[in-house]
Amino acid sequence: MTRLSELGESAVLRRLLAHRRAGSHEVVGPGDDAAVTKITGDLVSTADMLVEGEDFTRDWLDWSRLGVKAAAQNLADVCAMGAAPHGLLVSLAVPDSTEAGDLEALFSGIVTEAERAGRELGCTVPIIGGDLSSSGLIVTAITALGTVSAEEGAITRSGARPGDEIWLAGTLGRAAGGLDLLFAGARPGDDLPEGLASLIATQLAPQPDYAAMAHRPAASAMIDVSDGLSTDLGRIADASGVHAEIDRTALDDLVAPLRPAARYVLAARAADGAGGDDAGAGGAVSDDAVEALALHWVLDGGEDHGFVASSPVSAADPVGWRRIGEMQAGSGVGLDGAPVPTSGFSHFGK
Amino acid sequence: MTRLSELGESAVLRRLLAHRRAGSHEVVGPGDDAAVTKITGDLVSTADMLVEGEDFTRDWLDWSRLGVKAAAQNLADVCAMGAAPHGLLVSLAVPDSTEAGDLEALFSGIVTEAERAGRELGCTVPIIGGDLSSSGLIVTAITALGTVSAEEGAITRSGARPGDEIWLAGTLGRAAGGLDLLFAGARPGDDLPEGLASLIATQLAPQPDYAAMAHRPAASAMIDVSDGLSTDLGRIADASGVHAEIDRTALDDLVAPLRPAARYVLAARAADGAGGDDAGAGGAVSDDAVEALALHWVLDGGEDHGFVASSPVSAADPVGWRRIGEMQAGSGVGLDGAPVPTSGFSHFGK
Repeated sequence: MTRLSELGESAVLRRLLAHRRAGSHEVVGPGDDAAVTKITGDLVSTADMLVEGEDFTRDWLDWSRLGVKAAAQNLADVCAMGAAPHGLLVSLAVPDSTEAGDLEALFSGIVTEAERAGRELGCTVPIIGGDLSSSGLIVTAITALGTVSAEEGAITRSGARPGDEIWLAGTLGRAAGGLDLLFAGARPGDDLPEGLASLIATQLAPQPDYAAMAHRPAASAMIDVSDGLSTDLGRIADASGVHAEIDRTALDDLVAPLRPAARYVLAARAADGAGGDDAGAGGAVSDDAVEALALHWVLDGGEDHGFVASSPVSAADPVGWRRIGEMQAGSGVGLDGAPVPTSGFSHFGK
Repeated sequence: MTRLSELGESAVLRRLLAHRRAGSHEVVGPGDDAAVTKITGDLVSTADMLVEGEDFTRDWLDWSRLGVKAAAQNLADVCAMGAAPHGLLVSLAVPDSTEAGDLEALFSGIVTEAERAGRELGCTVPIIGGDLSSSGLIVTAITALGTVSAEEGAITRSGARPGDEIWLAGTLGRAAGGLDLLFAGARPGDDLPEGLASLIATQLAPQPDYAAMAHRPAASAMIDVSDGLSTDLGRIADASGVHAEIDRTALDDLVAPLRPAARYVLAARAADGAGGDDAGAGGAVSDDAVEALALHWVLDGGEDHGFVASSPVSAADPVGWRRIGEMQAGSGVGLDGAPVPTSGFSHFGK
């Protein structure tokens, strides 16, 4: 149990870098003013932060999974451009009083997820640089770099056309269900009904389906679902000037496994007196309320980091992807003909 | 006076991006999952954070200058590799209660410094991406990207050889003097003795001498002085396996202008009862103490972001650089023959 303040920055850095593996395209690694890497094609770059109190709390802090989550959300953004990850720059700010082993677990979680992405995508994804700071709050700020061939180009949000099919890789709603379970007081180590712990695990450490990129459809547009299907599909619809129509029955397989968690959350809220109309006498929860919450998670919950792509109709279905709707003339997002409000997460209270 | 919480993330982003100018090498700018840029040569990348309470406090927070400082420290790292900046990824975390105009000033300060670097270096340095988050503390996390020709390669810390001359571009000690002035209670708007306000300005918003890169010596090693000459020159000495010998008289022109500030700081400390042996009766401050503090700032103070390079002896002196010593066989850093401890800044209390 050694605190960072007992080690000092240089010793802490040495411990972290011991978890790092160099990439074959590195010319200058960590330890100089900047990293130098060999790069081929156009550069793809994205940055995302996780801030204590905003994106996670100490109540359910798991350092290793925080690292996985921080890496995953950045790597998913690179993949959503149709690009191959090139490396991560990892900036971490943690309190002086942090145990060295906890910071190592955070860093190691980042390395683990980057290596998983590399394995699934057939490339190496080293941590090529970053920064370390003392801070009153835990903050991760990661930049993910990637490459895309200049000839093929990146897959943006603006290429969808009426008639395109809408495809999903990965899951929806699991992380949102996990978050509501955490808010309802459930914890990873609790004796929970079957399947609930895995939703919490997805919230704490989402596992984007990078491997799906190998079989992706010839995409006209693509996005990583970080803010919810309704919001992120709405972004494609806006950028492309089309209407995205979701087929409700295509979501059945995503909604059904979430029902036990929805029932648990609604019962907990009812027991808390916060259930409102969702729960009858004795905390009984209606099937309709369960269905509505599970569907809400699937439509509006982000953070599973599923991938949604639009693609012209083709003879063969892409392996590992499910068809969830089609693009039409118009605007906005619909579900079996009814408009879907884009209700995803926004910072600064709106 | 509109707070971020009244605007919401999308409106805040629109305001910030109005300050941005696109670079000619951008293929996909902000607004997609990731940015795409055309790149030539090897990729140079570096990331640095500034954290409230660690790197600055609200006592002397100037949003615009914080932006300049955040950009400058990253751009200087790119330049110190002999590279040309390519763009910045800007992640900012601020409280919900922040005035929108303050966040705009922060972002605009970053843009201003990136554009200054671009002008001095003859390239465009757009903000190509980033992230925005709500946070209990103000945090800036910037990634600077750059390029270096694969044939010429980057200038690392490890190429210095005995006999090389040591060159400095820019200043030393000014930001450290400014920091001690701030700790002593001086503020930018105060009626201060001549020259003191400009030291505080350097602390709040350092202005690296990017233009010196056009005339730099044929460098065997180079570093950006962010942690102090003693520490950063020590890093070159360590990486290169040489001894860096500083010529004290070469520092005279750097030390002399700092004397009034050193006298002010020591007198303030004496008046506070913290002067110890530095001050006699009535708060008089000895010339020796003044000289020692001014030299300490020059030797050990970082954050001016001067550039130090080693270079084989050549017929012509590089314009805009000053010779401050030479590399010798051995190890460590010396000043006129006496060993200099490397006492630069370290996070986590050591």
